[in-house]
Amino acid sequence: MEKYKVKFIPDNLTVSVEKDKTILAAAISAGIYINSNCGGDGICGRCKVMVQHGQVNSQPNGIITAQERKENIYLACLTTVHSDLDVLIPDSSRINFDKLTPEELEERLSGLYSKAEDVLTVKPKFDDKVFKHSPFATKIYLELPAPTLNDSISDLERLYRALRKFGEFPVIETGLFNIRQLGELLRDYDWKVTVTLGRRDEIVEIVLIEPGDTTGRNFGLCFDIGTTTISGQLVNLNSKKILGTKAAYNQQAAFGSDVITRIVYAAKSDGLEKLHNAVSDTMNQIIKDLVSAHKVDLNNVNCIVCSGNTTMVHLFLNMDPSHIRRQPYVPTANFIPVLRAAEAGININPRGLLNCVPGVSSYVGGDTTAGILSSGIYQKEDPCILIDIGTNGEIVLGNRDFLVACAASAGPAFEGIDLLSEMLKAGIIDRAGKIKAQGKRIRSTDNGKEFVICFKEEIQAQADIVINEADIENLKRSKGAIYSACSILVKHLNLEFTDIHKIFIAGGFGTYLDIEKAIGIGLLPDLPRSKFIFIGNSSLAGAREVLLSSQAKSMADALALKITYFELSVNPGYMEEYSQALFFPHTDLTKFPTVRF
Amino acid sequence: MEKYKVKFIPDNLTVSVEKDKTILAAAISAGIYINSNCGGDGICGRCKVMVQHGQVNSQPNGIITAQERKENIYLACLTTVHSDLDVLIPDSSRINFDKLTPEELEERLSGLYSKAEDVLTVKPKFDDKVFKHSPFATKIYLELPAPTLNDSISDLERLYRALRKFGEFPVIETGLFNIRQLGELLRDYDWKVTVTLGRRDEIVEIVLIEPGDTTGRNFGLCFDIGTTTISGQLVNLNSKKILGTKAAYNQQAAFGSDVITRIVYAAKSDGLEKLHNAVSDTMNQIIKDLVSAHKVDLNNVNCIVCSGNTTMVHLFLNMDPSHIRRQPYVPTANFIPVLRAAEAGININPRGLLNCVPGVSSYVGGDTTAGILSSGIYQKEDPCILIDIGTNGEIVLGNRDFLVACAASAGPAFEGIDLLSEMLKAGIIDRAGKIKAQGKRIRSTDNGKEFVICFKEEIQAQADIVINEADIENLKRSKGAIYSACSILVKHLNLEFTDIHKIFIAGGFGTYLDIEKAIGIGLLPDLPRSKFIFIGNSSLAGAREVLLSSQAKSMADALALKITYFELSVNPGYMEEYSQALFFPHTDLTKFPTVRF
Repeated sequence: MEKYKVKFIPDNLTVSVEKDKTILAAAISAGIYINSNCGGDGICGRCKVMVQHGQVNSQPNGIITAQERKENIYLACLTTVHSDLDVLIPDSSRINFDKLTPEELEERLSGLYSKAEDVLTVKPKFDDKVFKHSPFATKIYLELPAPTLNDSISDLERLYRALRKFGEFPVIETGLFNIRQLGELLRDYDWKVTVTLGRRDEIVEIVLIEPGDTTGRNFGLCFDIGTTTISGQLVNLNSKKILGTKAAYNQQAAFGSDVITRIVYAAKSDGLEKLHNAVSDTMNQIIKDLVSAHKVDLNNVNCIVCSGNTTMVHLFLNMDPSHIRRQPYVPTANFIPVLRAAEAGININPRGLLNCVPGVSSYVGGDTTAGILSSGIYQKEDPCILIDIGTNGEIVLGNRDFLVACAASAGPAFEGIDLLSEMLKAGIIDRAGKIKAQGKRIRSTDNGKEFVICFKEEIQAQADIVINEADIENLKRSKGAIYSACSILVKHLNLEFTDIHKIFIAGGFGTYLDIEKAIGIGLLPDLPRSKFIFIGNSSLAGAREVLLSSQAKSMADALALKITYFELSVNPGYMEEYSQALFFPHTDLTKFPTVRF
Repeated sequence: MEKYKVKFIPDNLTVSVEKDKTILAAAISAGIYINSNCGGDGICGRCKVMVQHGQVNSQPNGIITAQERKENIYLACLTTVHSDLDVLIPDSSRINFDKLTPEELEERLSGLYSKAEDVLTVKPKFDDKVFKHSPFATKIYLELPAPTLNDSISDLERLYRALRKFGEFPVIETGLFNIRQLGELLRDYDWKVTVTLGRRDEIVEIVLIEPGDTTGRNFGLCFDIGTTTISGQLVNLNSKKILGTKAAYNQQAAFGSDVITRIVYAAKSDGLEKLHNAVSDTMNQIIKDLVSAHKVDLNNVNCIVCSGNTTMVHLFLNMDPSHIRRQPYVPTANFIPVLRAAEAGININPRGLLNCVPGVSSYVGGDTTAGILSSGIYQKEDPCILIDIGTNGEIVLGNRDFLVACAASAGPAFEGIDLLSEMLKAGIIDRAGKIKAQGKRIRSTDNGKEFVICFKEEIQAQADIVINEADIENLKRSKGAIYSACSILVKHLNLEFTDIHKIFIAGGFGTYLDIEKAIGIGLLPDLPRSKFIFIGNSSLAGAREVLLSSQAKSMADALALKITYFELSVNPGYMEEYSQALFFPHTDLTKFPTVRF
C-alpha cells in the first residue's frame, strides 16, 4: 500500500499514512484533535482544513462553498490523501481542551487521584458473579471468498454472509460511510478485512471495516463522570486488561461545586454549552493522556461506556437538566440510546460508540446502577447497604429481591474525618461540633472559632492550616445526611441495622476512609467492623463491566428498572432522623455502643 | 366526485374524467398526445386546443391572445373540465412521433411524462393484492399525562410508554437531537406532541417530535431513478393520495447516455462526485417543484423511497460503481440500509429517511424488483413476462413459484417504431433494415442511406427530418436484444411463448407503444394482443407501494432474494437467438404468423 507524508501546519507535525486515509484519520494519528461532531459523516461541517500542497480526493457535500473550494478548503472527514500533503488546520476546526496551558493542565492532573489506578487494582474480589466476555465492540477477522460468476452476491451481502457464521445477529446495520469504501477495500486487501461490531441496544452495527487482521487492536474506555472528579480507564477489550486509569477534576467545577448550582448555570445563555464542553474537555484530556501513555492509536479505541449521576449525564450529552431540580423532579431521559461518541464531543475513533449506564431518577443516576452492578448486592440473599460517598451521596438498601435507593446531599468535605475524630476524642470539639478547648491553637474569627492544625512556621507555608466551626458544621451535615438516609431506609423496610449483612462503601473518598473514625463521628452505623467492605469507585467498575459484557449491559438495564427510588424529603420521619444525626456521633449514644471518648 | 365526458375531435374519442382535471390530463388518458414541452406549466404555449362545446375554467396566462380567447382557444394544461366537453385538437398541438428528430421527441416526451400521474391513475387494476397501509413514516399524536411525584418516569420513557399503546415496536431508537429538545418541547406544549416514526428495517426510529397535532401533515416521495429520466411523486402518506408527479432528464446524461459510459466516467477524478451531484440535483429540483406546486412544507416531507437500476443507485449514493462492469460483475450492495435522505444529498426534512428498493445483481436492480412488486406477476399462477423498456431493458419471467430476470441493453431508440413499421410495410426498408427504395426521399450519405421523412420546406424547419440506416441498425439491435432475451428466458424454463399468460409492458416508452407495430418489427412476440398489458412506470409504482406499506417493503426484500439472475451473455444459445432477431420482424417468419407485409 502506498504511503504518503501529511504535514500539519502550524503544528509542524508530520505523519505517514496510507493512500485513501482521510485527513481526519491522519490528524488523529498525529495526535491533533479536529472537530468532528458528526463522527466523520460530513454533516457537521466543523472539520474544515486547507490543503496547501498536494493532491486529495474529496467527496461531494453541501457544506463547502464555491469560494472555499477555490481556496482548497475541504472537510477533513470526507477528503482522502492522494500524495504528500501540507494541511493547515485553522483554530476554528480544533478542539480546545482547556483554557489552561499544557503545563497548567498537567499540574492539575497530578492531583489527589493519581493513586486511583492502584486503588482499583487492589479492590477485593467480593463476588463470584462472572459475566460472559462479550464487549461493547468486537473485532472479527474475515477472509472472504472472492466473487465468481457463480457466486456473485454483492460485497456487502458477502460480508454479512461471512459474519453470520460467527453468530446470530438479529439485525446488522452498516452506515453509508463504510459501504462506500467497501468495494475498494475488499479488492485492495485480497478480501481480508477486520470488521468491528458494536452493539446498539438490540441491534449490531458494523462500526468499522479495516484492511487485514487488526483484531489485536481493540480498545475501549470506561468513565465515571463525577460532579467533582472524572475518572477514566483504558481497557483492552480482547484481554479485559485495564491498561491504565486516569482521573482529573471535572472542569465544570469552575461553574459551581454541586449539581444544583450547575443546573442553575446551565439555564444561562451558553451555560449548557459551557458545562458540556467542560466535561467533554476533561474526558478528552484523560483519553489523550491514557492513549499516549499506553501507545494506543485513538482510531483503535472503538467504544466508551460512561456512568454518572443524572445531572452529569445530561450535561455531558448537552441535554437540558433544568427539570431535574423542579418538582416533580423528572429528567429528560434515564435510558440513553447508544450514540456515537463524537455526538457527545468525545474523541475516539470517529465512528466509535458511546453507552451511558442507565439511571433510575433525577437523583439516583447511572453511577448508582453501576455501583449496584459491580458491588453485586443485587445477588445477595441477605440485605446489604451500598453507600457511595461523593459530592452526592447515594445509598442503596437491597438484596436479590428488592433494591431501594435514595440520595443524600453529602459534599466534598470528608477529607477531614480523621482529624475530626481525633479532635472529638481529644475534647477539642464537643458533640455538637463546637470548639470548646482553649489555647494558642484556638482563635476567634468572624466565622466563629478556628483550630490551627499547623502554624505556617512549622511547615514553612504561606499561611496557617486551620479548621473552623463552619468546616465542622459542613462535615456534620454531610455525615448526618448519610447516616440518617441509611437509617430511614432500614426503617422503611422494617429492618434494623443489625439485619444488614454487609455495608459496601464506594466512592473516591470511600477508599481512604478509616472505618473506626467514620463510626466514631457517626458517619457509619456502629456495626461489627467485618461487615464493612471498601469497593473503591464502584461506578467506574460497573461501567467497565458494561463495556466488557453485553450480559452486564442487560443486567444494568434490568437493575435500573428494578430499583425503587425513595424520596427522603417527603418521608415524615426524615427531618427528625436527620436532626438527631447532627451530633457526634449521634444524639442517641445507645446507637453507638462501641464508641468511647 | 363528479365526472364529465370529454370528446376529442377529430379523433372522436371520449373519456370520462373527474371535474377539475385538466384537458391535457384528459387527452393523455384518451391516449392522445398533446405537445407539452414545459411539462404542463403553461409556459411553452404548445398545447392549444379549441373548446367547441361546454364549460371550462382556465388560468390566465400571457400566451392566449384576445383573438384566440374569442375563438375559445385555451391551453390544455391550464384549463380544467367543468362540464361535458367537445374539444378540437389541432394538428399543430399534437405530437407526431414520426416527424420528430430524436432530440425533439425526447424534449416532448419529458413534457408528456410529467403527466405520468394521470397515466398511473388510469392504469388498469390488474391485481387484487392489497398491502396494508403502513407507510415508511407514520405520525402519532400523543397527549401525555404530566408527571407527578408518583409518576416521575423520565420524559423519554413517558413518550415511549404512550407510544407502546399504539402497537408493538420491537426496538425504538431516538437520536440525541430529538432527546435534547424533548424536555422543553413537552412542557411548552402542555405534553401534547406529534411523533413521526420511521421504519429502519427491523427497528423503529423516532424521526421527529413536533409540538401539537401535526398528524395531518405527513408526506413522502417516491422516485424512479432512470438512466435517462428521473420521475418523482409527492404522496400524502395518510390518504395514500398522489399529490403530483414530475419527471426530468437525469442530468447525468451530460456524462454519457448509458450506464457503462457513466461507470467509466465515475472513475475519473471527481467523476463520481459529478455524477452523484447530477442525480441529486435533478431529484432536488423535482422535489422543489412538487412541494411548491402542492404547497407542502419540505419539513413535512419525512421520507423517500427510490428505485433505480444498480448503477443509478450506486451513483446516487456516491458508491463506487466500477465493479459492476468488471467480471464477475459484483455491485457494492444490493440491499442498502435505511439512511437519512440528507446522506444522499436529498433535501427533505433534515432527519427524513431514505430507502432504496433492493436490487438483485449488477444488471437487475431495484427498479426491476419494484416492477415485479407493482405488476403483481409474483402472485400469478401462470407464467407471465414483465418487460421494462427503458435505456436499459429488463425482462422477468415468472409466477408465484419462480422469478428469473435478465438484462438486455436496449437504448433510447424506440421512438421510431411506428415509423419503422410503416417503412417496412411500404417496402422502403427490407427485413434486414437496409433502405431499398429509390426516389427523391432516399439519399446516400457517409453514414449509409437516409430516408427523408419531411423536407424542411414542408414544415418550415431549419433542416430535413431524416432517418438513416445507422438509426435503423440501432433500433434493430435494441429490439433484437429485447426479443431474444424474452425468447431465451422462455426456452430456459422449458416453456413456449404460447404458455405465457400475460406480458406486462412497463417503462416510459411502454405507455405509448403501439402493440401492433411493435410486433410488426419483431420487438414483441406475436401473441394474441389481449395478452399485452401496459403498466406505465412500474418502478415508480413499486417504490410508491414500498413508501406506503411496510408489507410491500418486506415483499420487495423477499422478492429481491427470490429473483434468479440469468446472465444472457454466458448462455450458449443467446448469440444465435440474438442474430436471428436482427431481422424485421425475425429471421424465422413462422414465429410471426400474424405479421403481414
